[in-house]
Amino acid sequence: MLLAEFSIWPMDKGQSVSPYVARCLDVIDRSGLPYRLGPMGTALEGEYDQVLAVLKQCFDALLADCSRVTASVKLDYRKGYAGRLDAKV
Amino acid sequence: MLLAEFSIWPMDKGQSVSPYVARCLDVIDRSGLPYRLGPMGTALEGEYDQVLAVLKQCFDALLADCSRVTASVKLDYRKGYAGRLDAKV
Amino acid sequence: MLLAEFSIWPMDKGQSVSPYVARCLDVIDRSGLPYRLGPMGTALEGEYDQVLAVLKQCFDALLADCSRVTASVKLDYRKGYAGRLDAKV
Amino acid sequence: MLLAEFSIWPMDKGQSVSPYVARCLDVIDRSGLPYRLGPMGTALEGEYDQVLAVLKQCFDALLADCSRVTASVKLDYRKGYAGRLDAKV
Repeated sequence: MLLAEFSIWPMDKGQSVSPYVARCLDVIDRSGLPYRLGPMGTALEGEYDQVLAVLKQCFDALLADCSRVTASVKLDYRKGYAGRLDAKV
Repeated sequence: MLLAEFSIWPMDKGQSVSPYVARCLDVIDRSGLPYRLGPMGTALEGEYDQVLAVLKQCFDALLADCSRVTASVKLDYRKGYAGRLDAKV
Repeated sequence: MLLAEFSIWPMDKGQSVSPYVARCLDVIDRSGLPYRLGPMGTALEGEYDQVLAVLKQCFDALLADCSRVTASVKLDYRKGYAGRLDAKV
Repeated sequence: MLLAEFSIWPMDKGQSVSPYVARCLDVIDRSGLPYRLGPMGTALEGEYDQVLAVLKQCFDALLADCSRVTASVKLDYRKGYAGRLDAKV
C-alpha cells in the first residue's frame, strides 16, 4: 500500500490559492480513499495506481483554468502494510 | 511567522526507524513550539530562527549515533500571519 | 509539459542504496525522455503521463526485491513550455 | 558534511519569479560554498551551519520585498564524506 502526501498549487494565481486548494480537496474527498488534512499537505493511502490517479485528477482540476501548476509529493510504499495513515501519527 | 514541515530519518539504521523518529518528536515536543503530527511529517510554527533551531536539534539528536541523516523540509514564511498551523487545515 | 524531479530509494536495504539508484537511472535512461542527473535527484521532462509512467517503472524496478520504497517528487506543469530542462538552469 | 538542495520562491509575485530566483542564486554564489544549479533547485555542500546560513540569507533577500516566501529543502548529512556534490551524479 502507498502512503502519499501531496501539496499542489497554481503558480499563476497570486497568493490567494485557497479556492484552488479547495478544489483539490474536493477531488480527494470524492476519491473515496482515506485521507488526512495537514497544514502543509494532504496525506492519503491506497494502492499505487489509485493514489496516483487522484494526483492526476487534482492536476486536471487546476489546469482547467491555471496555466502553471506545481506539486510537491512524498510517496512511501510498503508491501503488506495498510492503515498507516493513522498508525504513523 | 514560519510554518514548517519536517521529516527526518537515519539512512544507516535499516527499515525500523521508529526509535529515531521518536527521538525527534521528543526534541520537537520539548521545544515548546506548537506542532502537529502527520503521517508523513511533523508541522510546527514559530519564528524562523526558532523553527530552524529545532531542526538542528533533531539532526544533532540523530547524529549522536547515526552516520547519515536525511531530511525533507517544507518552509512557508508569511509576514504577519500566526496561527496557521490550525487555520490551514 | 511537465518538468519533474524524482529521488527514489529503498528503506530496507541500509545505507548502500547505490545499486538501487542505478537501477532507476537505467529505467529513466531507457524511457527516451530528456533528463538531467543532479546530486539530490534526477530531473526529467515530458508529457504528464509519460513522466508519471517512468516514476511507476522505477517503483516497480525497486519493488522487485525491496519491501519498502520511498520517493520525493517535485512536479512543475506549464502549458505550452517545452525545453525547460535546460532553460531553467 | 551536508549536501542540500533548495528551491525558494515568493508566493505573492505571480508567475514571473525569475528575478527572485536570480537574487537567491546571487546569495548562493557569494557564499563561497560549492554549488550546482539544476532545473528544479540548487544543490550546495558545506558544514551544516554554513549551508543553513545560506538558506536564511536567501529568505532574507526575498523577504525584503515579498510578504510570503516558500521553500522546499532536502538535506543529506553524512559524517566524513565531502565532495558528494559531484560524486553523486
